[in-house]
Amino acid sequence: MVAALGTLAFGNPSSAHREGRAAREALDQARDMTASTLGVNRSEIVFCASGTEAVNLALLGAGRKLPLWNRIVTWAAEHHCVIGAVRQLELEGHPISILPVDELARARPAEIPGDTGMVSISLANNENGTLQPVAEVVEQARRLGALIHIDACQGPQWLDPDVTRADLASFSGHKIGAGCGGLLWAREDIRLLPLQFGGPQEWGRRAGWEDVRGAVAIATALNVIAARRGDESRRARDLASALRESLSKLGATPTGGPQSLPNYASAAFSQVRGEDLLLALDLEGVAASSGSACASGSLDPSHVLLAMGLSLEQSLGSLRLTTGYRTTSEEVDAACAILDRVLRRLLAVQTRA
Amino acid sequence: MVAALGTLAFGNPSSAHREGRAAREALDQARDMTASTLGVNRSEIVFCASGTEAVNLALLGAGRKLPLWNRIVTWAAEHHCVIGAVRQLELEGHPISILPVDELARARPAEIPGDTGMVSISLANNENGTLQPVAEVVEQARRLGALIHIDACQGPQWLDPDVTRADLASFSGHKIGAGCGGLLWAREDIRLLPLQFGGPQEWGRRAGWEDVRGAVAIATALNVIAARRGDESRRARDLASALRESLSKLGATPTGGPQSLPNYASAAFSQVRGEDLLLALDLEGVAASSGSACASGSLDPSHVLLAMGLSLEQSLGSLRLTTGYRTTSEEVDAACAILDRVLRRLLAVQTRA
Repeated sequence: MVAALGTLAFGNPSSAHREGRAAREALDQARDMTASTLGVNRSEIVFCASGTEAVNLALLGAGRKLPLWNRIVTWAAEHHCVIGAVRQLELEGHPISILPVDELARARPAEIPGDTGMVSISLANNENGTLQPVAEVVEQARRLGALIHIDACQGPQWLDPDVTRADLASFSGHKIGAGCGGLLWAREDIRLLPLQFGGPQEWGRRAGWEDVRGAVAIATALNVIAARRGDESRRARDLASALRESLSKLGATPTGGPQSLPNYASAAFSQVRGEDLLLALDLEGVAASSGSACASGSLDPSHVLLAMGLSLEQSLGSLRLTTGYRTTSEEVDAACAILDRVLRRLLAVQTRA
Repeated sequence: MVAALGTLAFGNPSSAHREGRAAREALDQARDMTASTLGVNRSEIVFCASGTEAVNLALLGAGRKLPLWNRIVTWAAEHHCVIGAVRQLELEGHPISILPVDELARARPAEIPGDTGMVSISLANNENGTLQPVAEVVEQARRLGALIHIDACQGPQWLDPDVTRADLASFSGHKIGAGCGGLLWAREDIRLLPLQFGGPQEWGRRAGWEDVRGAVAIATALNVIAARRGDESRRARDLASALRESLSKLGATPTGGPQSLPNYASAAFSQVRGEDLLLALDLEGVAASSGSACASGSLDPSHVLLAMGLSLEQSLGSLRLTTGYRTTSEEVDAACAILDRVLRRLLAVQTRA
């Protein structure tokens, strides 16, 4: 796709000449395709540089237009960018609640306070894949007259995000195979204060140079996952369950619940550090995660696992394995064998020490 | 370069596995190369998605950390993103001044008010290429103890931005051949409120997914232009002067001054609309601009030309021709012939009407 776009990507879609118009046409097509995929209006789509930007534009953009007495609400196991934006709104004068989650990292919709003006909930937790009770959160928020933002960065490959039940929804390109980019859907009547000011791009909601290549990539990825998520989910369920069984046999505590994204196998070890696990697996060719990639530069324990009530040791020993559309059953078999070998070795070292 | 990066660009540099570490290494190299090119510390560089984002992170980021009684100052011919960010700071409580410019769009440094806390000045105007008196602005701002932001989006291919005399400087990737990306340099002791919150990327100054491909592209472009700007400027001066002469012969009013970027040929016509000019030139294969691309979606007159004191008619009839590193003298000769033909035809139609 990138090759097909070729030099197109170097035209500025805000220029009037041929090169600019070709870029504009590609951008318009990306917008139309996205609108049709999500079942929304084309003018409700804002192409961004990342999921984090889309989430921030949703929460800061809409939050800064709400009266200061409106409470902003999310949950303790949501992504760092959600919690970061909500904390910033607190500094700007809003009351906020970062509500506790249950032992599977699930939100409890009944706990949303009565003075809430905006709620942010993810489709699924990004560390253990647990599905969030989005329908119930929407129902409760609607009852209170609050705006609803769905963080759809994690999981739209497997689960229909069904954004139109909400007011705002954000997507991440690199998490759905687009390689880059982000996207915000904001219902036409939602007032947004932009994060950046300047030219009239994106109807004034996001000034600045338009990344045509990124827009086409995320539009295409959204279109592909909408067509394939049914079949791929069935396939991923089988693949991930083999991984989950391997982890269980090795004595790990599963961190995901029965209702989770089909491609997740996540667990916590109380005797092994997540970092050691990742390095050992990586040496054998298995790319795994511990906690969230966005925070993995730090050696802090996973805030999600802590919010679920796990101990500090367990939170430091978390492992996240996922499959993708391209993962084969042979690869999963190989990964299970490697997991078995690596973990037995690490656990043996740990026992000796 | 994009091809060389290949799948690298799809690794998340915040992941600990092999693919993530390879992406991290590419990002680190891009940062080191940029630091060396600009003569600054690597930790002072923030990779962004565009020049507009870099300018907004500089002005909103530093401005929101200043006391509300600090005045924010810029000039009426600066880019829309500068003026947009300054106006936003006004809405947030700062006094601001958007000072008038002279007939060549130049800032008058002596007019900076005494209560100024931050000044934003560009290297050169993006519509007519006029060089700004950056050294004098820096001197005056330093005398007042104000922060200085250099908008280096326009012109670093031709002119050493010499950023370290300032406190903040922003760059645009697509304007220097990188095809995408932006970059902010912010001196280590400058406090910045981020535009977006979340993970610890870019030392917390810009949370979110890191665009490795964009970072490598802008780092490489900055490196190339630093090496080539001397020779290329001499070549561009000859090429652009042929274009300027053509415009003069056709009765246009030059809008650039003697001290301007070497590759600019800009002029205003009182009898022809810029839009008609662009379309006619485009049909013949000449990609030109009227006003700023960032505002060209609108049919508003150029705010730069209005600020210079031109009439509404002249401001609507502006034309901007520029050459690049790849422009040949044969192309310039062909463009001059086309200009002559197209303009004579348009002026004739105008005279009949």
